[in-house]
Amino acid sequence: MAIEYGNTAWVLIATGLVFIMTPAVGFFYGGLLGKKNMLSVLGQSIIIIGMVTLIWVTVGFSLAFGGWGQPYIGNLDWFMLNGVGTEPLSTADGSYYGATGIPGLAFMMFQGMFAIIAVALIIGGVVERMKLKALVIFLFIWTMIVYLPVAHWVWGNGWIAQLGAIDFAGGIVIHITAGVSVLAAVIVLGKRLSLSNCCPDIPHNVPFVVLGGALLWVGWFGFNGGSALAADGIAANAIVVSQVSAATAAITWGTISYYHLGRPGVLGLITGAIAGLAAITPAAGYVDVSGAIAIGLGAGVFCYGGILLKKKFNYDDTLDVFGVHGVGGMWGVIATGLFSTGTLASSRVGLFYGGGFGLLSDQIIAAAAVAAFAFGVSFAILYILKKVMSIRMTKEEERIGADITQHGESAYGGLF
Amino acid sequence: MAIEYGNTAWVLIATGLVFIMTPAVGFFYGGLLGKKNMLSVLGQSIIIIGMVTLIWVTVGFSLAFGGWGQPYIGNLDWFMLNGVGTEPLSTADGSYYGATGIPGLAFMMFQGMFAIIAVALIIGGVVERMKLKALVIFLFIWTMIVYLPVAHWVWGNGWIAQLGAIDFAGGIVIHITAGVSVLAAVIVLGKRLSLSNCCPDIPHNVPFVVLGGALLWVGWFGFNGGSALAADGIAANAIVVSQVSAATAAITWGTISYYHLGRPGVLGLITGAIAGLAAITPAAGYVDVSGAIAIGLGAGVFCYGGILLKKKFNYDDTLDVFGVHGVGGMWGVIATGLFSTGTLASSRVGLFYGGGFGLLSDQIIAAAAVAAFAFGVSFAILYILKKVMSIRMTKEEERIGADITQHGESAYGGLF
Amino acid sequence: MAIEYGNTAWVLIATGLVFIMTPAVGFFYGGLLGKKNMLSVLGQSIIIIGMVTLIWVTVGFSLAFGGWGQPYIGNLDWFMLNGVGTEPLSTADGSYYGATGIPGLAFMMFQGMFAIIAVALIIGGVVERMKLKALVIFLFIWTMIVYLPVAHWVWGNGWIAQLGAIDFAGGIVIHITAGVSVLAAVIVLGKRLSLSNCCPDIPHNVPFVVLGGALLWVGWFGFNGGSALAADGIAANAIVVSQVSAATAAITWGTISYYHLGRPGVLGLITGAIAGLAAITPAAGYVDVSGAIAIGLGAGVFCYGGILLKKKFNYDDTLDVFGVHGVGGMWGVIATGLFSTGTLASSRVGLFYGGGFGLLSDQIIAAAAVAAFAFGVSFAILYILKKVMSIRMTKEEERIGADITQHGESAYGGLF
Repeated sequence: MAIEYGNTAWVLIATGLVFIMTPAVGFFYGGLLGKKNMLSVLGQSIIIIGMVTLIWVTVGFSLAFGGWGQPYIGNLDWFMLNGVGTEPLSTADGSYYGATGIPGLAFMMFQGMFAIIAVALIIGGVVERMKLKALVIFLFIWTMIVYLPVAHWVWGNGWIAQLGAIDFAGGIVIHITAGVSVLAAVIVLGKRLSLSNCCPDIPHNVPFVVLGGALLWVGWFGFNGGSALAADGIAANAIVVSQVSAATAAITWGTISYYHLGRPGVLGLITGAIAGLAAITPAAGYVDVSGAIAIGLGAGVFCYGGILLKKKFNYDDTLDVFGVHGVGGMWGVIATGLFSTGTLASSRVGLFYGGGFGLLSDQIIAAAAVAAFAFGVSFAILYILKKVMSIRMTKEEERIGADITQHGESAYGGLF
Repeated sequence: MAIEYGNTAWVLIATGLVFIMTPAVGFFYGGLLGKKNMLSVLGQSIIIIGMVTLIWVTVGFSLAFGGWGQPYIGNLDWFMLNGVGTEPLSTADGSYYGATGIPGLAFMMFQGMFAIIAVALIIGGVVERMKLKALVIFLFIWTMIVYLPVAHWVWGNGWIAQLGAIDFAGGIVIHITAGVSVLAAVIVLGKRLSLSNCCPDIPHNVPFVVLGGALLWVGWFGFNGGSALAADGIAANAIVVSQVSAATAAITWGTISYYHLGRPGVLGLITGAIAGLAAITPAAGYVDVSGAIAIGLGAGVFCYGGILLKKKFNYDDTLDVFGVHGVGGMWGVIATGLFSTGTLASSRVGLFYGGGFGLLSDQIIAAAAVAAFAFGVSFAILYILKKVMSIRMTKEEERIGADITQHGESAYGGLF
Repeated sequence: MAIEYGNTAWVLIATGLVFIMTPAVGFFYGGLLGKKNMLSVLGQSIIIIGMVTLIWVTVGFSLAFGGWGQPYIGNLDWFMLNGVGTEPLSTADGSYYGATGIPGLAFMMFQGMFAIIAVALIIGGVVERMKLKALVIFLFIWTMIVYLPVAHWVWGNGWIAQLGAIDFAGGIVIHITAGVSVLAAVIVLGKRLSLSNCCPDIPHNVPFVVLGGALLWVGWFGFNGGSALAADGIAANAIVVSQVSAATAAITWGTISYYHLGRPGVLGLITGAIAGLAAITPAAGYVDVSGAIAIGLGAGVFCYGGILLKKKFNYDDTLDVFGVHGVGGMWGVIATGLFSTGTLASSRVGLFYGGGFGLLSDQIIAAAAVAAFAFGVSFAILYILKKVMSIRMTKEEERIGADITQHGESAYGGLF
C-alpha cells in the first residue's frame, strides 16, 4: 500500500519520544543514587542504546517480528533489514505491520526503541554493585533469549497472541520481563554492601529524578500513542488514558504517602506517575477514562505496596524496578482483562464490561508464563555468569563507586 | 467527518509539547530559587498535573468547551468524557472543534494541557511562603471558578468570543488570568520574610532556569502552533511568529539590561524570550513577521518595566509572574488589535493594518474584563481561605524552606 | 499545490527538534567546562538563537534559498519573508522547496533552525577566552558571509549542487563550515591561559553533557529525518541510519577508549555518538544500514583521532569542534561518495555500490572547497577584528571566568 504521511509523521515522532525515554531512565535512576554512581547509569544507558540498536538492525527485529504466526520465535528473513525498506511491510505474509501505511523502516525503528528501553529498565535494580563488563554480557544475552522471544510471542503472533491475550504497548513485553528479571538478578547478585552495613547513599539530585520522570511521561505518549501505528482515535485514546492513569497514580501515591509517612514526598509523586504509566501500558488501546482511573488507582496502591515488599522479603532491588515495573506491569495486564471495553483496538471485552472471565484468564496465563520465563532465564544466565566470571564489584569498588571504578570519571568535577 | 491523520499527528505531538511545559515551568522557577525550595515547585507541578487532569476529564472540559454559545459557562453534557471519543466532535451543535478532523479525545487532551500550564504558572508568584495544602485548595477552586469560565468565554463561544475579541492560543485565557491572579495572591499573602528582613536566596541553578526556558520555548511551538488544530499554514505561521517574537524580546531584554545594568545577563535573556512568547500567544494566528518583531520589541520593553513595578509598588511577586505573564499577556492581547492582518486565522483587521479601532477596543475590553475578574475572584478566594485556615508557612518553615517542611525531602542529598 | 498535512506535521515537529539542539549544545558544551564558564555558553546560545533568527527572517533565508540556480548567492526577493507564506513555495521558479506540500513558512523556519545550530557549534571552540562582544560580531559576519553563501551553493542549486555533490542534511553546510571555522578561530585567538599555564578546568557536570547529548541525538532525528521534507520512507531511512551510525560510533569510541585508556568513559561514549551523528548527516538520505555501520565505525575511529590532533599540532580547540564536527563532517561527505546506494533520495551511486569515482570526486571537491573557504574567511574576519578591537578576555577575566566577567552572573548561586 501507499505511504500514509500523517500516520508516518506520528510514528516517526513517537520513535523519537520513545528514544528519549532511555536517557530519561538514566536521569531518573541516577538522581536517586549517590553522586559516585550517577555516571554509571548514564554510561550504561548509552551502551545499551548502542548495543541493542546493533542487535536490532542485524537480527533482533527479524527474530522478534519475522515469522508471523510461528509460536516461539521469528526467523532471519529480515537479517540486516533485508526487505525492510521505505515502503510499508507487505501484508502478504499475514502480518499487519504495514497496514496503516507506515514505511517498514519506521515500524522497525519504533519497535527497536522498545527493545532498548526494556533493557535499560533493568539497570535500576542492579546498580551500585554489578560490574560493567558482566552487566553488558548479561544484557546482551538477555536481549537475545528473553526479550526477542517474548516480543515474538506477543507481537509476532506467537503463542501468547494466539492464546488471545492482548498487550497494547508492552505491559507483558517490557514491564513484566524487565521487572521480574530484576528480581532474579538481585537474588543472584546479593545485597549492596552499603545496605548490609549501614546505609546506602541518599538521592543526590532529586531534580534529575523529576527531569527524567517528566521526559518519561511525555515519552510515554509516544510509547502508548505510537503503538496505534496511526495518528487516529486509538492513539488519542492511548494518550488520554495514559495521562489519566499517571495523574491518578501520582495523586494516589502522594495521598498514601501523606497518611503513611506524614508527607507528600516529591519522589513519591513522580514514582507514582511512573507506576501509573507502566500499568496503563498494556491497556492503553483497550480501556476508557473510567478504566484509566481504576488502573491508576490500583497502580498507586499496588506499587506502593510493591516497594515495601523488598524490606519484607529482604532482597535489594536498588531502585524498585520490580516494585514499580514488575508489579505495575502485572497489574496492568490483569486490569486489561477487567476493563477492556471491547470497542477500541480489540473486540475482547473485560470482566467488568460484561466479557466474563475469558480475557481475564488469558491475561493471567500470559502474565504468569512470561514472569516465570523471564525469572527463570535471567536467574540461569546470571547464575552461570557468576560461575565463569566476576559479576560483582569488589567491596572497595563499591565503596568508591561505579563512576570512578567502572568508567574512570566522576560526574561533578571530581568532587564527591 | 473522517479523521485527518496529518492534523491528528500534529495535535497529538503538540499535546506532548504543551505537557512538557509544566515540568519546564518547575525547572525555570526552581532554578531561580534557593536550594531549599527547589523541590517544592517541582512537587507542586506534579500535583497540579494530577489534579487538573482529573478535574479536566471529569467536569472541566465539559464546563469550558461544552455548551457552545452559552455566554458564561458550558454544561455537563461531556461529563466523564461521555460523547468525547475517537471520532471528531460533531459540528452539529455549532462548535467547530472537530472541523479539522482530529479525534474528540485529542482536542480534549490538547486543551487540558493548557489548563494545567495556566494553573502551574501561578506557583511562581507565591512560592517560598505559601503552605502546600492551602495552595492546592486555592488552585482547585481557581481552576473551577476562574479558569473554566474564562476558557468558555473565549473559546466556547462565550460572551468574549461573541463580543468579537480574538485570542489565538491563550493570551487572555492563560497569561492574563494567571498573571493577574498572582498579583491578587501576593497581596493577600504578604511578602516573604527573607525579602522583608534582608535578602532572599539568589538563584541556585541558572542552568536549570535555561533548561526550563528552552523546554518552554519549544513547548510553545506546540502551544501556539497546535492551536491551529491542523498542520497547515496557520500552524507554520504561529511557529514562525513565536520564534521571531521570542528572538526579538530576548535581544531587546539583553540590550536594555546591557545599558541599564552594564551586563547582558543570562537570566534576562531567557526571561526576555519567555516574555516574547507570552506576548505573541494571543496574536500567533493573526500577525505576520513584522507584527511579531513589533510584539517582541514591546514584550522586551514592557515586561522589563513590568518587573520593576514590584519594587515601586512594594509587592512580592517572587518570580515575576505578573511582570512577565500578566504584562506580556495584556500587551499581546492589545497588540493583536494593532497588528492583526485579517488575512490569516481571523478576518478582523488591526489598527495598523487599516482595521480602525474596532478590534482594538474589543481586545482592550476583553483584557480588562478578564483581568478584573481574575483579580477579584482570586483575591476573594484567598481572603476567605485566609480566614478559615493557615495559608502561609510559619517563619521557621520559611527559614528552613518548603522542601523539608512541606515535602519532607531535600533536593540535593540533604546538603543545603 | 495543496498543503499535505502529514508532511507538514512532520516538518513542523522536526523544526522543534532542531530548535532544541541549540540549547542542547549549550548543555553539552557547558557541562564540559568548569563552573565559571557554564553560563557563558548558555547565554551565547540564546543570543545566537535571537540574532540568527532575525537575520534569517529578514535577509538570510532569501540570500540562502532565493535565486535558485544562481551559482554563488541568492537574492532578496524574499526580503522580510515577502512571498513566503502559508502556502507551499511555488515551483514555478524551478526550486522544489514546496514539492511535498509544506507551507513556505514551515520550510523557511526549518532551514532557519539549521543556520542557528551551525553558528552555535562554533562557540565550543572559542569558549573560555573570547570576549562576548567580539564573538557576537564575529558570528554575525560569519553568518552573513560564510553560512549563507555555502547554504546557497549546496541547497539553493548553487555551484556545488550543479557540480553534482550531494549533502542530505548539512555535512558540508553545517559540520564542515562550523568545524573548520573553529580551527581558524582558535589559531587567531591563541590558547587559553589555563592550558598554557597548567591545567584547564575539568568538566563540572557530566550529567549535563549527557543531557545535551541525548537532546542532540533525538534532535538529529528531526535534523536528518526532517530533511526529507516529507513523512515518507526517506525520512524513516534517515532516522534509522542516524540511529545506527550513532550507536556504532558510540560503541566504537568506547571500545577504542577501553583499549587506549583502560576505561570506557561516559564522555567518550556520548562524544562518539555525536561524531556518528555528524558523519551520517550528509549521507542520511542516500545510504542504507550497511553504509551506516561503516560510517559510524569510521566516525568513531577518525574523530577519536581528530581530537588527538590538537595535542600534536598544538592548537586549542577547547571542546573539539574541529575534531568532532570538522573531521566527522568531512568523513561523512566523503563516505557519501563511497556508500550512496543510488536508490534512495539520489540516483548518484557511490564507489562501493558500483558508481565509480564520479560522485566520490565531486564530494571531495565540495568538501575541500568549502573547508578552504570557511577557513580562509573565518581567519580573515577574526584577523581583522583583532586589529580593530579586543577579541580576547584579559588574563584576569579568564581566571575569573566568562560567567561573571561577560554576563555578571554565576551559574550556581555564587559558589564556585
